[in-house]
Amino acid sequence: MDCIFCRIVAGNIPCYRVAENDDSLAFLDIEPAAKGHVLVIPKQHSENLLDTKPDTLALVAQMVHHVAHQIDVTLEPDGINILQNNRPAAGQVVMHYHVHLIPRWNDDNVMKAWRPKLATKLDLNEIAAQLRAAAG
Amino acid sequence: MDCIFCRIVAGNIPCYRVAENDDSLAFLDIEPAAKGHVLVIPKQHSENLLDTKPDTLALVAQMVHHVAHQIDVTLEPDGINILQNNRPAAGQVVMHYHVHLIPRWNDDNVMKAWRPKLATKLDLNEIAAQLRAAAG
Repeated sequence: MDCIFCRIVAGNIPCYRVAENDDSLAFLDIEPAAKGHVLVIPKQHSENLLDTKPDTLALVAQMVHHVAHQIDVTLEPDGINILQNNRPAAGQVVMHYHVHLIPRWNDDNVMKAWRPKLATKLDLNEIAAQLRAAAG
Repeated sequence: MDCIFCRIVAGNIPCYRVAENDDSLAFLDIEPAAKGHVLVIPKQHSENLLDTKPDTLALVAQMVHHVAHQIDVTLEPDGINILQNNRPAAGQVVMHYHVHLIPRWNDDNVMKAWRPKLATKLDLNEIAAQLRAAAG
């Protein structure tokens, strides 16, 4: 088994477990962006959002909700970012679908908002039409 | 109705619609981080992840999956970030639960990975134990 997260699920590699049920596992990121940075993964392997079954995504979303409450009552952050990266261009490092929960405190500078790119009405109309056409 | 996203759902403010079903709506962010930056929202108002019903989160997750495929086949990005901000400290601007889908291309510099903070084993053990205790 080459996937480090599958090995964690199998118990072959230890983790700092936060929560677990039949379908998903939550554990601390060992290279955290902030105190209390948690990863939530489905136990069944998939590489990213695109190849994960919709039912699995729904179960992971509910575990993310549960863990967000754990973080909120325990660490009392000022906010929480939920981030999920698909493919290396988006910052994905481990190729097993995972969701980051990153507690935030005011002025911590952990993540910056992007600078919006100028979008003309024409651009937006064109892109929306293209995407709608792919709805299948 | 003060919430701008509820007004979009009600049809009182136009949007660049990408996809829609009974429960959720996907439309272009008019201040995009990148070409094809989409927001997915539940039609029923909630403020953030913490006060959104688990069933609603599951439905939104499935719409995010659907739109990610629309983006992937249409724009062929190198990656996609899924980002959901809770409260102003985490960058939330509109107080209606929403998920960002941000197409990424290699070396676009749209979002930077965070610099990991040093975490000792002791810290991680303590935090994991605290969070587990809040599992209820």
